[in-house]
Amino acid sequence: MSVVALRPVEASAPLFDLKQVVAELAAERQRWREAQKRSTEPGGRELPSRDALAQIIDGLRGVLFPMRLGPADLRQESEDFYVGHTLDSVLHALLVQVRLELRYAQRLSEQTDAQVIEARAVAIVRDFSRALPQIRALLDSDVVAAFEGDPAAQGVDEVLLCYPGILAMIHHRLAHQLYTLGVPLLARMVAELAHGQTGIDIHPGATIGAGLFIDHGTGVVIGETAVIGQRVRIYQAVTLGAKSFPTDTDGHPLKGLPRHPIVEDDVVIYAGATVLGRVTLGRGASIGGNVWVTHNVPAGAQITQARSQHEAVGG
Amino acid sequence: MSVVALRPVEASAPLFDLKQVVAELAAERQRWREAQKRSTEPGGRELPSRDALAQIIDGLRGVLFPMRLGPADLRQESEDFYVGHTLDSVLHALLVQVRLELRYAQRLSEQTDAQVIEARAVAIVRDFSRALPQIRALLDSDVVAAFEGDPAAQGVDEVLLCYPGILAMIHHRLAHQLYTLGVPLLARMVAELAHGQTGIDIHPGATIGAGLFIDHGTGVVIGETAVIGQRVRIYQAVTLGAKSFPTDTDGHPLKGLPRHPIVEDDVVIYAGATVLGRVTLGRGASIGGNVWVTHNVPAGAQITQARSQHEAVGG
Amino acid sequence: MSVVALRPVEASAPLFDLKQVVAELAAERQRWREAQKRSTEPGGRELPSRDALAQIIDGLRGVLFPMRLGPADLRQESEDFYVGHTLDSVLHALLVQVRLELRYAQRLSEQTDAQVIEARAVAIVRDFSRALPQIRALLDSDVVAAFEGDPAAQGVDEVLLCYPGILAMIHHRLAHQLYTLGVPLLARMVAELAHGQTGIDIHPGATIGAGLFIDHGTGVVIGETAVIGQRVRIYQAVTLGAKSFPTDTDGHPLKGLPRHPIVEDDVVIYAGATVLGRVTLGRGASIGGNVWVTHNVPAGAQITQARSQHEAVGG
Amino acid sequence: MSVVALRPVEASAPLFDLKQVVAELAAERQRWREAQKRSTEPGGRELPSRDALAQIIDGLRGVLFPMRLGPADLRQESEDFYVGHTLDSVLHALLVQVRLELRYAQRLSEQTDAQVIEARAVAIVRDFSRALPQIRALLDSDVVAAFEGDPAAQGVDEVLLCYPGILAMIHHRLAHQLYTLGVPLLARMVAELAHGQTGIDIHPGATIGAGLFIDHGTGVVIGETAVIGQRVRIYQAVTLGAKSFPTDTDGHPLKGLPRHPIVEDDVVIYAGATVLGRVTLGRGASIGGNVWVTHNVPAGAQITQARSQHEAVGG
Amino acid sequence: MSVVALRPVEASAPLFDLKQVVAELAAERQRWREAQKRSTEPGGRELPSRDALAQIIDGLRGVLFPMRLGPADLRQESEDFYVGHTLDSVLHALLVQVRLELRYAQRLSEQTDAQVIEARAVAIVRDFSRALPQIRALLDSDVVAAFEGDPAAQGVDEVLLCYPGILAMIHHRLAHQLYTLGVPLLARMVAELAHGQTGIDIHPGATIGAGLFIDHGTGVVIGETAVIGQRVRIYQAVTLGAKSFPTDTDGHPLKGLPRHPIVEDDVVIYAGATVLGRVTLGRGASIGGNVWVTHNVPAGAQITQARSQHEAVGG
Amino acid sequence: MSVVALRPVEASAPLFDLKQVVAELAAERQRWREAQKRSTEPGGRELPSRDALAQIIDGLRGVLFPMRLGPADLRQESEDFYVGHTLDSVLHALLVQVRLELRYAQRLSEQTDAQVIEARAVAIVRDFSRALPQIRALLDSDVVAAFEGDPAAQGVDEVLLCYPGILAMIHHRLAHQLYTLGVPLLARMVAELAHGQTGIDIHPGATIGAGLFIDHGTGVVIGETAVIGQRVRIYQAVTLGAKSFPTDTDGHPLKGLPRHPIVEDDVVIYAGATVLGRVTLGRGASIGGNVWVTHNVPAGAQITQARSQHEAVGG
Repeated sequence: MSVVALRPVEASAPLFDLKQVVAELAAERQRWREAQKRSTEPGGRELPSRDALAQIIDGLRGVLFPMRLGPADLRQESEDFYVGHTLDSVLHALLVQVRLELRYAQRLSEQTDAQVIEARAVAIVRDFSRALPQIRALLDSDVVAAFEGDPAAQGVDEVLLCYPGILAMIHHRLAHQLYTLGVPLLARMVAELAHGQTGIDIHPGATIGAGLFIDHGTGVVIGETAVIGQRVRIYQAVTLGAKSFPTDTDGHPLKGLPRHPIVEDDVVIYAGATVLGRVTLGRGASIGGNVWVTHNVPAGAQITQARSQHEAVGG
Repeated sequence: MSVVALRPVEASAPLFDLKQVVAELAAERQRWREAQKRSTEPGGRELPSRDALAQIIDGLRGVLFPMRLGPADLRQESEDFYVGHTLDSVLHALLVQVRLELRYAQRLSEQTDAQVIEARAVAIVRDFSRALPQIRALLDSDVVAAFEGDPAAQGVDEVLLCYPGILAMIHHRLAHQLYTLGVPLLARMVAELAHGQTGIDIHPGATIGAGLFIDHGTGVVIGETAVIGQRVRIYQAVTLGAKSFPTDTDGHPLKGLPRHPIVEDDVVIYAGATVLGRVTLGRGASIGGNVWVTHNVPAGAQITQARSQHEAVGG
Repeated sequence: MSVVALRPVEASAPLFDLKQVVAELAAERQRWREAQKRSTEPGGRELPSRDALAQIIDGLRGVLFPMRLGPADLRQESEDFYVGHTLDSVLHALLVQVRLELRYAQRLSEQTDAQVIEARAVAIVRDFSRALPQIRALLDSDVVAAFEGDPAAQGVDEVLLCYPGILAMIHHRLAHQLYTLGVPLLARMVAELAHGQTGIDIHPGATIGAGLFIDHGTGVVIGETAVIGQRVRIYQAVTLGAKSFPTDTDGHPLKGLPRHPIVEDDVVIYAGATVLGRVTLGRGASIGGNVWVTHNVPAGAQITQARSQHEAVGG
Repeated sequence: MSVVALRPVEASAPLFDLKQVVAELAAERQRWREAQKRSTEPGGRELPSRDALAQIIDGLRGVLFPMRLGPADLRQESEDFYVGHTLDSVLHALLVQVRLELRYAQRLSEQTDAQVIEARAVAIVRDFSRALPQIRALLDSDVVAAFEGDPAAQGVDEVLLCYPGILAMIHHRLAHQLYTLGVPLLARMVAELAHGQTGIDIHPGATIGAGLFIDHGTGVVIGETAVIGQRVRIYQAVTLGAKSFPTDTDGHPLKGLPRHPIVEDDVVIYAGATVLGRVTLGRGASIGGNVWVTHNVPAGAQITQARSQHEAVGG
Repeated sequence: MSVVALRPVEASAPLFDLKQVVAELAAERQRWREAQKRSTEPGGRELPSRDALAQIIDGLRGVLFPMRLGPADLRQESEDFYVGHTLDSVLHALLVQVRLELRYAQRLSEQTDAQVIEARAVAIVRDFSRALPQIRALLDSDVVAAFEGDPAAQGVDEVLLCYPGILAMIHHRLAHQLYTLGVPLLARMVAELAHGQTGIDIHPGATIGAGLFIDHGTGVVIGETAVIGQRVRIYQAVTLGAKSFPTDTDGHPLKGLPRHPIVEDDVVIYAGATVLGRVTLGRGASIGGNVWVTHNVPAGAQITQARSQHEAVGG
Repeated sequence: MSVVALRPVEASAPLFDLKQVVAELAAERQRWREAQKRSTEPGGRELPSRDALAQIIDGLRGVLFPMRLGPADLRQESEDFYVGHTLDSVLHALLVQVRLELRYAQRLSEQTDAQVIEARAVAIVRDFSRALPQIRALLDSDVVAAFEGDPAAQGVDEVLLCYPGILAMIHHRLAHQLYTLGVPLLARMVAELAHGQTGIDIHPGATIGAGLFIDHGTGVVIGETAVIGQRVRIYQAVTLGAKSFPTDTDGHPLKGLPRHPIVEDDVVIYAGATVLGRVTLGRGASIGGNVWVTHNVPAGAQITQARSQHEAVGG
C-alpha cells in the first residue's frame, strides 16, 4: 500500500515482469503436456475437489454419530430428520465427485459414454450409502477397543471426540468402501485428509477387521495390500510396509501385487516397529517397540529388540 | 447438476434408498445405546466443542503474546485494551465449555445440581484466569530455551512464530492447567488440537518444568504421568511412554497410576529414543538417538546405541 | 448465556478478576521486554503473517499448476488470464510480507532507511517471480519421481493432488528461493506450513536437486545445511540431522556452519534411518530402515541394520 | 501500514488520545444510564440479535417453501427430512431469542422468575410452530394474487423468487404471529429486516387477510392497528397511517389505540395514495394515485385526484 | 442452551410437535401442487440462484470498471489479466444459471431437448459477453450525466463509487441484455438485486438510451415497456407506470402489450411525478414535482403542479 | 459442469470469444481515460473501500453503544476494554481510508507531498475520535425523540435496535463529522451505506441539531446545504431539496452554494411533503402530508394540502 507513496516519481515502469513470467510458465506447462502426451485442446476437465470431499466426510461423520459429531444442539427426537437431510445432501455431493473421477478415468481409457458413467456413478453412491450402517457398527467396535486399550481414556465419548486413531479409522472405513467400489482417487483423497490431520497414513486399499486401536498414531503407515484381523492394537510410528517390489521390463513397479503384511487377530505391535513384506504375524503375537520384522511370526510369539545400547557415565 | 439432463425420462424412482439407510442407521444407534446403557429419552446434551476450544486457544495466544500472536496492527499503547477485551470474551466462552463438561460428567454421577455446577464452573474459569501470568512466564522460558538450543534459530520472535514445539507447549501449559482444575476432557481436546497441528502428543496430565525445548517434534509422545524437570531438550519421535499397566480383575486397565518416566533437569533425549515405564533419567543425562530405555539412568550418564549395521558395497 | 438466569440475585460482583489479571500479564510482558532489551515506546511493528503467507502459497500453487491446483472450473484457453491475475495479486501480497520482514530485521541492525528497504523488497519479489518457471520444472521432476517410485500411484495427477511429499516439495522449493533471496523468516514460515500439514520438516536452507521422492513422509527431518542430489528417494521418519555443533565462548551454538549430510544422486534412504553430521552418502548408496549413520558411506554401498531381536514363543 | 515508514523518528507519542476518548465515552454512557435510571451493576443482559433473527427467518423461508427457497439441490423425496431438521434447528434458535426478549421485558417489570419465563418461552415457540402451516396457506394466496395482478409476471415461481412484496409478506405473516404471541420486539426486528430489503414498512401489529398484493412496494407504510381484508392490492408509496394520536397528561402519546385505516376486501390503492386515521375504505373501493384520504370511503367508490397541474409550452 | 438446566426433571416429552408440524406443512405443499397442477414425482429441478447472480454481477462490475470497482490493489499493467480471468469465470457461472432458467422454462413447454438447451444457453452467454463493451460505453455516459447533473458531485469516480442511480443503471443495462436474449427470469433477479439495494425499480424490459441520470432514486419505478431517450434526468419517487391494462376473457391481464410511457431525449422529471400509460413526453419537456400525467406532453413543455395548499398561522 | 458431457466431440473451439471481448473492453477503458484526461501510466491508485468503511462504521456503532450494539455477551465491567480495543482498531482502519482519499484528492491537485498527507490524515482521525463523545450525546437525543414521538415504540432500546431513522442518524452524524474534517468522499460513502439500508438519503453536508426523529423514513431526501434545528420530526418520503441551481458559463452547476431549506426548531414535516430551495420553515411550523413548499413558512404556521380529489360511487 505504501508503494505508491514511496515510489520515486520517475519510476513509471511496472514493478514486476508479469508478462514474461506468465509466458515462461506457459512454456513449462507446454513442455509437461508434451512429455505427458496431454491434450492441449481448449476446454477443461475438473478433478475431484479436496475441499468438497472434506465437507462430505464432515457430513458423514455427523450422519454416523449424530449426537456426538453432529450439530451441537441436536436432540434425540429429531435425529432422523438431521440424518436424513444430511445424508441426502452428502450423497448428492458425493455423486458429483464420483462422476468427476469416473470422467477423469474415462479420459484415459476413452471406452465409456456419458450415460454409462452416470449409471455407474449412481450405483457406486447407492452401494456406498447402503454400507454406512455396517461401517457404523465397525467404528463402534473401534471406539470400544480404544477405550479398553488405553488406561488414560475416561469414556467412550472422549475417545470419539479426541482420539486421532478414531478419526483415522472413520476416514479409513469410508475410504476403503470407496476404494472397493471403484473410485480409488476419491478414496486416496479421503485417506490423505486423515493423514494430514493425524499423521496416520493408512492406504485405502488396506483390509482392516473390527476393533482396531491405533494409539497416539503419529507416523503409523499401513500399506495398500495389508490385511489386519480383529482386535489388533498398534502404537505410534509402526510401519506395515513393502520390502521390495517387482518391476516390469521397463523398470516400472508392477502395481497391485500383495506386498504388505498380514496381521492376524489380537496382535499387538508396539511403537516404532517395522514389519515389511508379505509376512504373517500370527494370532496373538506381540511385536516389541522399534523391532524390525521381515519374516513370518508364529501365533503367540513375543518379539523384542536385543538390548544394544552402550552406557557411559561421564560429562 | 447434470443429473436432471441425463436421467432417462422413465426413471421416476429416487436415486438412493434414503429412508432405508436412515432406518438402519437408527437401528445401529439403538444397538449402541443399549450396549452402553445410554438414555434414549428425548432431549439433547451438548458436548464441549472442538471448534469453540480452538477459538478460545487462539484468543489466549493473543492474550499471552499480544504483540506477536495478537492482531497484526496492535500497538503497545493499546495492548491492555486488547488483552482485557479478548480475555473477557475468552473466559466467558470457556465458561460455556466448562459448564458443558461438568454437566456431561454429572450425567454419569448424577450427584450434583445446576447451582453447584454453575458455581464450580465459575471457580474453575476464575482459577484458570489467575494462572495465566505464570503460564506466560513459563512459556517465555520455553522460547528462550528453543532459541538457545537451536543453531538455526535467528531470534526469539521467529521461535514464537514458527516453532511447532512452542505451539505444543502453549497448548500444553494451558491444557495442563485445565486438567489440574478438573476438566480433563477440555484439557485433552486442547492437547489434541496441538497434536493435529504439530505431531507432538503431550498428554495434559504430564508435569513439565520451565524451559523445555522440543525440536522438530513430529512423533514425540509424552504420557499422562510423566514428570519433566527444567531445561530439558527433546528431539523428534521421542517417546516417554508406559511399559505395561496393571489391569483390574475384569482385565480393564487401572487408570491414573504413575506409569511414565521421570526426567530430571537438564536431560537431553535425542531423536527416536524410547523411554518406557516409571524410570528416572537422572539430572543431566543424555539419551542417544533411537535408544530404547526401560530402566533408571544415573545423573550425567550418556546412553548411546550399539553400532549394529552391516555394510556391503555392491549394486 | 444461562449465567444470568442462574446467578443468585445478590451476586453483583464481576465473575472474574479481569483488571488484576490484565495488570499481571502487563507486568510479565514488561519483565520480558526488559530481559530482551526490547523497546517499550508507543507504536507497533507488524510481523509477517502466517495466514497471509498461507494464502500466498495457495495462490502460487495455482500459478504453478493451474489446471490441477487452480480453480476447479478453469479451462486451458483462459489459463494465462488466471495465471497472470493471480501472480500479480500474489506478488504484491508477498511484497507486503517481504517489507515486513525487512523492517523487522532492520529494527535489529538500524542500518538502512525506508527507501533502501523498499528497493530491496521489490528486488526480492522480482527475483522470486523470475524463478517460478524453473521451480515448476523442478516440481515436475518430483511428480514424475513419485509416480515412478510408488507402485500404489495410479497417475501423475493423483500424485500432485494427494501426495504429502509433493506438497512438502512445493513449499520447500518456494521457501528455499525465499531463503536464498534473504528473507529467512518468511521462508521458515512457508516450511512450517507444510510441516504442520504433512509432518515433513525440511529446513528452507536445505539444497535439493531434481526428482526427490519422499514417501509417506511423516517424521522426515532435513536440516538447514543438508545437500541432496538428483533422483533421491526418502521414506518416512528419516532424519538428515546434525550430530553436534560447536558453540562460541558463551556456549551459544555457532549459527550457519555446514553440519548436515550430503546425499548424492540416486541414493535411497529407508524408513526411520538417521544420518547425522556432515557425512556424505555416495552416489547410489542404499541406507536400510532404522539404520543409524554417522560416517561417510561409499557410492553404491548398501547399509542394513544388524538382525538384533529376540524371539520367544509363549503366551 | 506505511505509518511506520513515514512517521518521523522523533514522534514517539501515540497517534490518538485513546484513553481520553474512552473515558469521555464512559462518562456519556454514565449520563445516559442515570437519565434512563438504568442499572450500572456488573453483569450483562443480552438483547435479541438481528443477525440471529435473519438466519431464523432464512430457515423458515426454506421450511415454508422447501423446493423454491430451500437449498438448491433439494429433491422432493427428501423434502420432509430437510423441513424437519431445519424446523427443529430454527425453533431452538428462536427459543433462545424469545427467552432473551422475555428476560429483557422482565427487567422492566421484575415480576416473573426464570422458570416462568422458560415455560412461557417454550409455549410461544410451540404455538408459533403450530401456526406455520396456516401461514404457508396464506402466503400461497399472496403469491397467486401477485401473479394474477401483474401483467409482467411470468409465473408463480418468479413471483416467489423475485417480488419484494412477497418477501415483505413472508416477513409480515411471521412477524405478526410473533407479535400476537407476545414478543413484539422480535416481531419488530423481523419486520425491519424486510423493510431494509424492500422499502416496505409493515408494522407487525397490522392484521392482513389472504391474497394481499403489494406491487413495487418501495415507500409503502402500513401502521400498527391497520386492518386489511382479502384480495387487496396496494402500489408503491401508499401510506396507511395515523392522522394524529391522543397523548396522556404528560404529553406522551397513548400507545395501542386503534388509529390506522380499515381496508375492506377487494380494495385497490394506487401509488402514492395516503390514507390516514381510523377510516374505512369500503369493499371494492378504488383509491387513485397520490390521493389524500382522511375520511371513510363507501364500498365500490372510486377516488381520484383532481386534475391540478399547470402547463406551459415554452423553452 | 440453558434448557437442559432449567427443564424440570419430569419433563421427558419433546418440546415441540415436530412431526405434526412437518406433516401439516407437507399437506399444504401437496394442496398447492395439486392446485398448480405441479408434478409430485421424485427428483428436483433447480431454480436460478439469487446468490449466484449477485456474485456474477459483482464480477461483471469489476470486469466493466476494473480500476474502480475491481480489487483494491489492481494496477493498470495487469488489468487485462484480471478482466480476462474474471470474465471467464463469470461467464461460466452465468452459463450455469442460464441453463437452469432454460430448463425451468422447458418444463412448462416440454418442447426442447437437452442438446438444444445447451446450444441455446451457450449462444445466450456468448452474445451477452459480446455486448459488454457497448454496455461499458453506455454506463460511461450515465456517469458523466450524473456528474454534470448534480452540483454536489465532486468527481466522476465519486459518482461511480457512491451513487445509487449508477448502481441501478449497471444492473439495468446488464439485466436488459439478459431480457433481450431470452432469459427474463435472470433479468428480473438482477433488477431486483438493485431494487433491494437502491429502492430504484426498473423492469429489465425497459429500453433506456445513453446518459440517464437518476438522482437519489428511492421510490423510482420504471415499467416493462417504457422507452427512455438520451440525456434524461429523473428524481426520486418518479413513476413511469401503466394506467390500466386489458384482460383476456378469463379476466387475466394480457401480458407484453406496450403500456408504459415514452420519454424522449433531454426530458427532466422531478421528484414524485407520476406518468401513467402509453403517453409520450416530448423532447426537452420538464415535468414538475408530484405532478400526475396521463396524457401526451408536447416537446419543450413545462408541467407544474397547481399551487394548492392552505396555510394557517396559529399554534 | 455438465458442459463437458454434453458438448459434441467435434466442438474443440472455446465457448466464448474471451480475448476479443477483453480487447474491446480495454479499448473502451482507453477511450474513457482519454476523454477524462486520465493517466495511463503503469501503477495503481487505490480508492477508499466501501467494505472497509462498512466495517469501520460497524465498529463505531459498538464503540458508541457497547451494551446494545456491541457484542452480544459484553458485560458492563469490561465495557471500557471493549471500547478501547475496538476504537483503537477502528481508528487505524479509518486512517488507512483517510489516507486513500487524501492521496486520491492530491492526484487532482498535485500540490502536497507524502509527509504532509500523512500528517493531515492523522490529524483528521484524531479530531474525528475526539468528537465521538459529543456524537454519542446527540444520538441519545435522537433516540429519546423517536421514543417520545412514536406511539408504537415500546422502549428506547427497541428504538436503537430497530428504527431505520436511528440507523440513518448514526451514519449521518459520523458522516457529517468526516465531511467537516475534509474527507467528503468517505462521508458520502458512509451516508450511502445508510441510504441503501434505510431508503433515507441525507447528504453528509447537512447540518442537523439534536433530537431529530425520522419516522419510517423510506424516500426521505435531505440535501447538502440543508440546516435543521432541534427536535424536528420528519416522516417518510419528505424531500428537503434544491429548486434550481445556478450554472457557470459552461453550463456546469456551481457547487457548494446554499440551496436547500432551513428548518427551525420543533418543526414537523409530514409524509411526502416537498420543501425546495433556500426557504425557512419557521420555529414550530407544521407542514402537511404531500404538501409542496417553495417559499418561507412563518413560525407556528400549519400548511396543509387543499382537498382536491374527485369521488365517484360506482363501478
